Amino acid sequence: MDIKIDEQYIRRCFALAKKATGMTSPNPLVGSVIVQDNIIIGEGYHQRYGEPHAEPNAINNAVEPVEGATLYCNLEPCCHTNKQTPPCVNKIIESKIKRVVISNLDPNPYVAGNGVKKLREAGIAVSVGVLEEEGRELNEVFFKYITTQKPFVHIKLAQTLDGKIATDSGDSKWISSELARERVHQWRKKYDAVLIGRNTLENDDPTLNIRMGVDAEGKHPFRIILCSVDKLSTEFKVFNDSASAKTIILTSANSLDKCSEEKIEFFENKGVRIITVEKKEDSFDLNDLLLKLGALKISSILVEGGQSVITAFIDQVEYDKLSLFICPKIIGNGISYYKNDKKQKMSEAIQLNISEIENFDGQIIYHTYSGGQKCLQG
Amino acid sequence: MDIKIDEQYIRRCFALAKKATGMTSPNPLVGSVIVQDNIIIGEGYHQRYGEPHAEPNAINNAVEPVEGATLYCNLEPCCHTNKQTPPCVNKIIESKIKRVVISNLDPNPYVAGNGVKKLREAGIAVSVGVLEEEGRELNEVFFKYITTQKPFVHIKLAQTLDGKIATDSGDSKWISSELARERVHQWRKKYDAVLIGRNTLENDDPTLNIRMGVDAEGKHPFRIILCSVDKLSTEFKVFNDSASAKTIILTSANSLDKCSEEKIEFFENKGVRIITVEKKEDSFDLNDLLLKLGALKISSILVEGGQSVITAFIDQVEYDKLSLFICPKIIGNGISYYKNDKKQKMSEAIQLNISEIENFDGQIIYHTYSGGQKCLQG
Repeated sequence: MDIKIDEQYIRRCFALAKKATGMTSPNPLVGSVIVQDNIIIGEGYHQRYGEPHAEPNAINNAVEPVEGATLYCNLEPCCHTNKQTPPCVNKIIESKIKRVVISNLDPNPYVAGNGVKKLREAGIAVSVGVLEEEGRELNEVFFKYITTQKPFVHIKLAQTLDGKIATDSGDSKWISSELARERVHQWRKKYDAVLIGRNTLENDDPTLNIRMGVDAEGKHPFRIILCSVDKLSTEFKVFNDSASAKTIILTSANSLDKCSEEKIEFFENKGVRIITVEKKEDSFDLNDLLLKLGALKISSILVEGGQSVITAFIDQVEYDKLSLFICPKIIGNGISYYKNDKKQKMSEAIQLNISEIENFDGQIIYHTYSGGQKCLQG
Repeated sequence: MDIKIDEQYIRRCFALAKKATGMTSPNPLVGSVIVQDNIIIGEGYHQRYGEPHAEPNAINNAVEPVEGATLYCNLEPCCHTNKQTPPCVNKIIESKIKRVVISNLDPNPYVAGNGVKKLREAGIAVSVGVLEEEGRELNEVFFKYITTQKPFVHIKLAQTLDGKIATDSGDSKWISSELARERVHQWRKKYDAVLIGRNTLENDDPTLNIRMGVDAEGKHPFRIILCSVDKLSTEFKVFNDSASAKTIILTSANSLDKCSEEKIEFFENKGVRIITVEKKEDSFDLNDLLLKLGALKISSILVEGGQSVITAFIDQVEYDKLSLFICPKIIGNGISYYKNDKKQKMSEAIQLNISEIENFDGQIIYHTYSGGQKCLQG
């Protein structure tokens, strides 16, 4: 039971798990390997929501008998039956696996240590907590969603070296490099939804889909527009392209009341959903918003701007991660991503922590987690 | 003549040279070692302006006879007599040194290869260009000054993560950490002068001297205020403290004409110099300004703000290095370091290069050189 050897196989589980990035939501990313006499005899991962879990895949893929072997898995095997596949714990016990090594306990209240308990009751040795932090980071989306029923929120923005996300005239093409924008498309693939406000919609008329050489594998994110629906034009691409059924308008009840029947019918015909969200001061109540998206099984969103939307997420501290591309150009006018006229003393500034700094393709990427944590504590 | 061995001894010259940081202006930083049979038998460096050069110091410090030895020196030995000390080339020839290894040729038009020529004519083997780039970086101030007669200009600023150098009310205490501000005091020691504009003077009333644990060794930088002198109050610390004779006001001829005789007399009594600078559009002609400071033997300045001053230096491309402290706090209002209302397309932004990024005490420090070069080509 050398801890270094355990870590090595758990790392292999992480690598396998990552192969399904963007495909398992709202399920976690899970990989599993089976080791007999220090040789991997079986590997598997959870490939797609609704399909078998990592552990049965690894057992079924084994090229030697698994009896007496050690099973590694980055997340605690499930023991509940209220889902589409049979519980993994039973399969492990039946297979006469001798030892199980886990990175994280499953925060899902239906599991939460019960999987480990069942395995131990069946006489299986279980080690928990190997590379626990890395495991939690790999599944930061799942951990947030399963414990709060709200999606993981990742704010992404690109600003000039003098802190502007667009010129006064609204132009922002382009602040970051092509390679940096490709990175954003990889994130769009990773997350369930992309969210923007009305100004970004009007300035950029974006499609918000996955392009730039990133293989979408048939999966495109939901496009969420946060705005007053009554003032909204129906002309934009997200309402008229072939993926319009993946567009959701979040608006206030008051704005929906004022919206013309004709416009509502237009959206209905296009499959665009309209969902009302409570108001909070000058903006929307983001706790209500996130709970409503969570109820739709949207477990993660990438917030792509602009100022009003990002300001609301920062002020209400309803984000988990902020990634800021700082690009080496100076423009001299324009708007910033955050607006607050009340803080007239520098000592009143919102203090963040630096989680990671990348020097990426000539730009700085600054990543921070709200609360300074890399991910929620399990 | 192993190149690796030569580099090793030239690195030692750099280390010796740096001991005099801030003390040799407008002379360069120079170190020298003398090596006999692969053993260092003498070391020296140029300790202070007006005192002996590195090479005679190394020769005089030698603990063994230097005849037949190799002399290493990061800058070409001098051969001119229009200065306070005798030419080093003569001393080297008299000492029967056999070989001389140099990092950089001296860009000083009085030397410029003539030192090497004289050594070779005396039968001494000379190698030039060992760690040339590092040598030029070490003496970037000297290279700029000697070739242009204008001081090296280093702009330093601290901004929030949303690009603000102060709140709307002018408060900027503090954006960066104490350790970051200590770094700035080290720069104040390194450079001959600190330059600010009127807003920074009025908002902060700074002393602009060397504090925060940095040993000034009796040397404080000139404090340069760039502003309209007629509108200037005489109340500020830089005009009234014990170092007021190291304060210089740069102003327009027009403003000086409008200034009261009483005020001019006040400044005279305090030893504060007033120098007029040509105007250029809405600001000052910085080429004229830098030539006038160069004529005072000020070979380097640290520009510490604010917006108008920094904007002028950026627009007129009259800076050499820009160091931006990006601090992980968000304020939501305030001013940026650069202002330009004409650039309404992002494609018109000023494109910079990243020379170096530091993750320093929780902040990002971004360094760039104008033109993307680390230092002037010699």
